[in-house]
Amino acid sequence: MVLAVEWRDDERPCLRLIDQRMLPADERYLDVRSVDDLVEAIQTLAVRGAPALGATGALGVVVAMNEAELRGWDAERLAREIDRIRDARPTAVNLAWGVDQVRPLMGEGVEAVLRAASAVVADDEAANRELSRHGADWILARTGRDRVRVVTHCNTGALATTAWGTAYGIIHELFDRDRLEIVYADETRPLLQGSRLTSWELTQDGIPHVVQCDGAATSTILRGLVDVAIIGADRITANGDTANKVGSVALALACHRAGIPFVVAAPSSTVDLRTATGDDIVIEERTGEEVLVIGGHRVAPAGARGFNPAFDVTPHDLIDAIVTERGVAEPAAHPSPRLLEAIAG
Amino acid sequence: MVLAVEWRDDERPCLRLIDQRMLPADERYLDVRSVDDLVEAIQTLAVRGAPALGATGALGVVVAMNEAELRGWDAERLAREIDRIRDARPTAVNLAWGVDQVRPLMGEGVEAVLRAASAVVADDEAANRELSRHGADWILARTGRDRVRVVTHCNTGALATTAWGTAYGIIHELFDRDRLEIVYADETRPLLQGSRLTSWELTQDGIPHVVQCDGAATSTILRGLVDVAIIGADRITANGDTANKVGSVALALACHRAGIPFVVAAPSSTVDLRTATGDDIVIEERTGEEVLVIGGHRVAPAGARGFNPAFDVTPHDLIDAIVTERGVAEPAAHPSPRLLEAIAG
Repeated sequence: MVLAVEWRDDERPCLRLIDQRMLPADERYLDVRSVDDLVEAIQTLAVRGAPALGATGALGVVVAMNEAELRGWDAERLAREIDRIRDARPTAVNLAWGVDQVRPLMGEGVEAVLRAASAVVADDEAANRELSRHGADWILARTGRDRVRVVTHCNTGALATTAWGTAYGIIHELFDRDRLEIVYADETRPLLQGSRLTSWELTQDGIPHVVQCDGAATSTILRGLVDVAIIGADRITANGDTANKVGSVALALACHRAGIPFVVAAPSSTVDLRTATGDDIVIEERTGEEVLVIGGHRVAPAGARGFNPAFDVTPHDLIDAIVTERGVAEPAAHPSPRLLEAIAG
Repeated sequence: MVLAVEWRDDERPCLRLIDQRMLPADERYLDVRSVDDLVEAIQTLAVRGAPALGATGALGVVVAMNEAELRGWDAERLAREIDRIRDARPTAVNLAWGVDQVRPLMGEGVEAVLRAASAVVADDEAANRELSRHGADWILARTGRDRVRVVTHCNTGALATTAWGTAYGIIHELFDRDRLEIVYADETRPLLQGSRLTSWELTQDGIPHVVQCDGAATSTILRGLVDVAIIGADRITANGDTANKVGSVALALACHRAGIPFVVAAPSSTVDLRTATGDDIVIEERTGEEVLVIGGHRVAPAGARGFNPAFDVTPHDLIDAIVTERGVAEPAAHPSPRLLEAIAG
């Protein structure tokens, strides 16, 4: 089993990340022992996926404390370095959440922080397995189909989490119950997490699937080729508005038109009750070069500029179900600003 | 000025195509003198774009007649070879239309056919310039904006036509009137006609633009960053349903949600009154390798399969305006099975 995020308590302890920039061509690992290296790994998407970023944030505090010990940083410098980790990317709430889970324990020493961070990792897997059961139950009841045909976007499997996956976990659960027909995996431009990572996980798990261009998803849905869309989330606000990888909201509009359910799956730590609506979410804008340059080769003409928002927001009225390990909320059918309190972390 | 399709009456007459597979890195030309080469050029998208395919179909009959002369084909063989050109791609109506425009003249000799085919080429440019004026007038009246912000998909410029362009022609017209603010050009996976071709044309014409991933288009529209979507068409059926490059219908759904107009632009030859609705359009499915392999490098894991419909259908109720050189029809506001009779070819 692949571990996206793992603590290695060797002679020289480190945070081990599988380098997701290199997959599926190369299975290479990064052993991270400095805040600089960690921030770079986060910002260049060597590690990505909201729940994996939560675990990375928690374990990152241990990395920072170890580096502080080595370099003799004072408390103020250490706090600043931890803030750099916390703020390395703005959209996924989990990164800051992971840091904040363990930071209050710093006074008790690095071992206490490591124990708490390890609990964050273990809890994530348990949450993913539980939300997958809830999600599969809800989808089978709603669609009434013997075997469901699923469309998904980006990567939400073991690589995006600590284990098992969120939206991917539901797909895996359906497959294990022999209730899955096929997965349409969006390739997910610009960084191709769908064709590089999701297709790799699906292939390893033996789950039948095809990879399609993001622009094909809408017509796949409108042509009646799928029964449900399932995506992950980077931040779910109090009213159910959901930030996820750019391209997600197109699926939601298509599902609405086709009359099939659009499902968001995430651990309860992704629910951010302090943010009221999607209008308040900061959408990370990444360099246009990610759009214009593919595989080291410039596609667009010299002088062209790229526009590269990394996420989009799906309004709650287009979301039929939000699934966490605590249960299922139905924003489209039952909108309410307090909707998510029961399933938040 | 670039010519996508041109007849060269040299010592060895040929159909000269700019090889659009190589742009923008290389500006290379193909001199086509055989049906085999022409069919390959069409199927591999060295030449593409519905109006350009119309001109290619018409001039292709001349190529076939010249080859028949050289190789001593009988009439039956020649007819079979012309059918191969006519059927090289199924979705764009213009390819067959172009062949059919000149085929009845074959009895009058190759010079008569060439004259008729040259008229097809000339008429296309005139139609594009006229529809661009209609489209710009309609958009400025509808949006009421001083300068409009446009999103477009795929390539509809000079490269997709014989000259000037369709949706691109409207953009160019708005720019020439100093009524254009910016163009968001979808990159258009899998073959990247947007980043390779549209951005190249926009750069050459000095038109301000950014290139975005197809999956970003919906949120660009929902965030209020654009005032209108303008696309081309490969086939417009009698009720206004429109086939265009895959990814187009996502823009239409987003425009509908955002309350901004979605405009289809094409010469009247793209209107196919003999096809009643979009359900009757054959959607070309191309090899999955176009999705899985980018720039010669395989992105997806070994064993993964690609799903690659090349077009999608936008239902007429999502289309605010269809613009041809004969005028503007408004399918969403005034649906009717006879809607397009006034603006068809």
